[in-house]
Amino acid sequence: MSWQPNRQSDSTLQQQIVQWVTAQVERGDWAAGTKLPTQRQLAMQFGVNRSTVQQALEELKAMGVLEATVGSGVYVTRNSWHALLQQTQPNWQNYIETSLHKPNYHTIQLINEYEQRDDVIRLGTGELAPSLLPTEEMEASLRELSLQPKTLGYSSPQGKDELRAAICDYVKKRGIEVEPQNVCIVSGALQALQLIAVGLLEQGSIVFQEPTSYLNSVHPFQSVGMQMIGIQRDEQLAQTLSQRKRKKQAVFYAIPTLHNPTNYVWTSLEKKQLYEVCQAERIPIIEDDVYHELLFEDSLPPIKAMDSSGQVLYIGSVSKTLSPGLRIGWLIGPTTVIERLADIKMQTDYGSSAISQEIVLHWLRSGKYEKHLIRLRQQLQNRADFTERILQEKFRGVADWHKPKGGFYIWLKFHKPVIDKDFFLKLLQRRVLINPGYIYDLQDQHHIRLSYAYATYEELEEGLEILHECVMEATDIL
Amino acid sequence: MSWQPNRQSDSTLQQQIVQWVTAQVERGDWAAGTKLPTQRQLAMQFGVNRSTVQQALEELKAMGVLEATVGSGVYVTRNSWHALLQQTQPNWQNYIETSLHKPNYHTIQLINEYEQRDDVIRLGTGELAPSLLPTEEMEASLRELSLQPKTLGYSSPQGKDELRAAICDYVKKRGIEVEPQNVCIVSGALQALQLIAVGLLEQGSIVFQEPTSYLNSVHPFQSVGMQMIGIQRDEQLAQTLSQRKRKKQAVFYAIPTLHNPTNYVWTSLEKKQLYEVCQAERIPIIEDDVYHELLFEDSLPPIKAMDSSGQVLYIGSVSKTLSPGLRIGWLIGPTTVIERLADIKMQTDYGSSAISQEIVLHWLRSGKYEKHLIRLRQQLQNRADFTERILQEKFRGVADWHKPKGGFYIWLKFHKPVIDKDFFLKLLQRRVLINPGYIYDLQDQHHIRLSYAYATYEELEEGLEILHECVMEATDIL
Repeated sequence: MSWQPNRQSDSTLQQQIVQWVTAQVERGDWAAGTKLPTQRQLAMQFGVNRSTVQQALEELKAMGVLEATVGSGVYVTRNSWHALLQQTQPNWQNYIETSLHKPNYHTIQLINEYEQRDDVIRLGTGELAPSLLPTEEMEASLRELSLQPKTLGYSSPQGKDELRAAICDYVKKRGIEVEPQNVCIVSGALQALQLIAVGLLEQGSIVFQEPTSYLNSVHPFQSVGMQMIGIQRDEQLAQTLSQRKRKKQAVFYAIPTLHNPTNYVWTSLEKKQLYEVCQAERIPIIEDDVYHELLFEDSLPPIKAMDSSGQVLYIGSVSKTLSPGLRIGWLIGPTTVIERLADIKMQTDYGSSAISQEIVLHWLRSGKYEKHLIRLRQQLQNRADFTERILQEKFRGVADWHKPKGGFYIWLKFHKPVIDKDFFLKLLQRRVLINPGYIYDLQDQHHIRLSYAYATYEELEEGLEILHECVMEATDIL
Repeated sequence: MSWQPNRQSDSTLQQQIVQWVTAQVERGDWAAGTKLPTQRQLAMQFGVNRSTVQQALEELKAMGVLEATVGSGVYVTRNSWHALLQQTQPNWQNYIETSLHKPNYHTIQLINEYEQRDDVIRLGTGELAPSLLPTEEMEASLRELSLQPKTLGYSSPQGKDELRAAICDYVKKRGIEVEPQNVCIVSGALQALQLIAVGLLEQGSIVFQEPTSYLNSVHPFQSVGMQMIGIQRDEQLAQTLSQRKRKKQAVFYAIPTLHNPTNYVWTSLEKKQLYEVCQAERIPIIEDDVYHELLFEDSLPPIKAMDSSGQVLYIGSVSKTLSPGLRIGWLIGPTTVIERLADIKMQTDYGSSAISQEIVLHWLRSGKYEKHLIRLRQQLQNRADFTERILQEKFRGVADWHKPKGGFYIWLKFHKPVIDKDFFLKLLQRRVLINPGYIYDLQDQHHIRLSYAYATYEELEEGLEILHECVMEATDIL
């Protein structure tokens, strides 16, 4: 919804809003029963005062286009003239409400939406800043690509052969010895999880993970009926896994290197323990390793490197390092599993972008990728240091954190439980966008995932100042 | 599985095969219970005689690595030394068998696999031949692209704004008047169907379609529990839809222009009838319009052009015209629906390749796309004429067909029901790959989807000669 009223128009802002909303409804674009955003959100979207929105909504209610339900918001009317108009339309709202896939949390929908706006300071974004992306080098590499006619065609189910071979060479440096037949190219790590969800698990299967986890903020498993169980990485791990698993199929999802969102790095011992416990219980491990190239110091081998029995499904990607826009990642596992998941991928999107695959191949083979990583790590280290200095100045006394060992994030823990949806919205009103802890653990009101990877230095300074003000305010109220 | 024994090696072919299979099993790459391909298929894959395969399999059975079940094939052993070895491995085969998503039909898996081989004549492929793809122009256009830093980042949920605007302009020529907010960029038409399946339908919903349909060869709806109902395009349509729908949610899937696989083109009256019936029953229509640019003569407006009430979800793509490797298509519908599906797309793969989107934008805006289409249609027309001449010469008396009005396909109907799985495999042994009618309608043993878009002229001639021989042989047996 990007429309805004025209301030040069002869009509008032209110009239324009009324006309625009009516048009959405008449065209069937806003179906009967659609819930409108709050007045505050609409005011921000339209770039007008809240009172203007309020008056427009009153008029629309008087016209019968909208209706209000006490305490629950404003909706497109389901009855009267509107219902007459829509008698011939499919009841889209009903279709949406009864369908299979969960919607994103509202907070995440807002994050996805506000990340598109230029006037917002993004303190939580899990993405490299435009200035950290090798745009010029990428343009140059497009000029170096020579395309084969076959390149433009459908790719093979597991992805481009040469790219899979290049990935085998690449992961060898992480101690992973595999053949191209063990690799499936995917459109980013999230798609790998989606394929595992529908291609390996049955309804009611258990997905073990750490209690605070990226997986709680997306729904590849939940949407197809898996049960998520948070589990501590401690000495009771073996016992807990064994008890809770009972007779069900299960997998363990882990991000052992630069965990999202906590940025924690597992020790070798912790990796070994998990592998052994899961081996004893015959529980496959999904090892999400998309951040490892961003460790400021040398990284330890992944769990996959100790996998002698095809127990670990390993996920890598260039989204956090080179360009999320390419949508290229890889999934490594036993041939039986990889062929199965590639078969489903063919039924899902007929493979990943061939041009994107060519580009990643070129970057891996030419050495550009590793050269870029060296520079990138240094830039992220500088940003981490800068951000931590601000934290030291402003947030000592109200929050704790660990010095980041790499990656994008500081898992900032406030002493008081102030980080709730209201707090998120209040910051958004001040044009600061955060990733609150509760999207990674529903109960959490103490954390935010602070990212030093996206905002500019000036924005980091300004955004953290605003964050500080809002935290102080919220703490005072408590 | 691309391994072949080395004929220069000191070991015999049989020894090499035994060693290779054992290694697959020991590494856990072939899990216990995995079914092996047939001897014939293995012989083709390894490039050896069938007797060599047979001897190798016997040796592996004697070793206990494989076991045979009478009448059902050869499996990786589930017990004895092998089971001991695998006690610590996850039971992958069990995971796969109980998981949610349907595998592709075996015939389609074979098609996907053999389409990767250079020594096969592809008479069924739904894809432009490499020589018809504008490879050089594409390379040139890569050199013209200027990337913004933001291009390399994550895209917005609905896809790149400029591309959506360009698509609005493009479909306007088809009589479709929409705004960018009505458009969601997808990774090909198949992904659009996948999003609709999980984002709009509930389990047990009905998907109406013509009895013979592309949708029977892929499983976006079936895999999440929808019920597919084939329905004739005739005067009883209204009555049948109303009766069979009863209280369930339903959609109607149609390919009104150059239907896949029949290549049929609906008349304006047929489109109008379907629209009116579905409007009366409030059944949304999914209009798959990915072939319309390939009509040899001017095309009629799509159903979407008569849609005044947001009833039709319209799907377009560049996969059949410019490059399937780009993986770019679009879904057009009411904002409420598009926002919902874009939200799910964000949970599925975080958007389509940004570089692919840039390329399609460049081709649309620069006019290159339409220029390319003019040349392409002419080339397809020539291929259609050439192929039909061969059919006239060889197949009159054994088969019927309609003169193609565009696109890729001739829906070749043999008088005798000879097109079964055995026939498919027999042709494959002779290195000719077809798309048999039974993948589009399980009961069909009369048709093949003959594609004149992929094979070279020489291959078309040779392949059709072999097809003719096999058909005559099969007819004699009947």
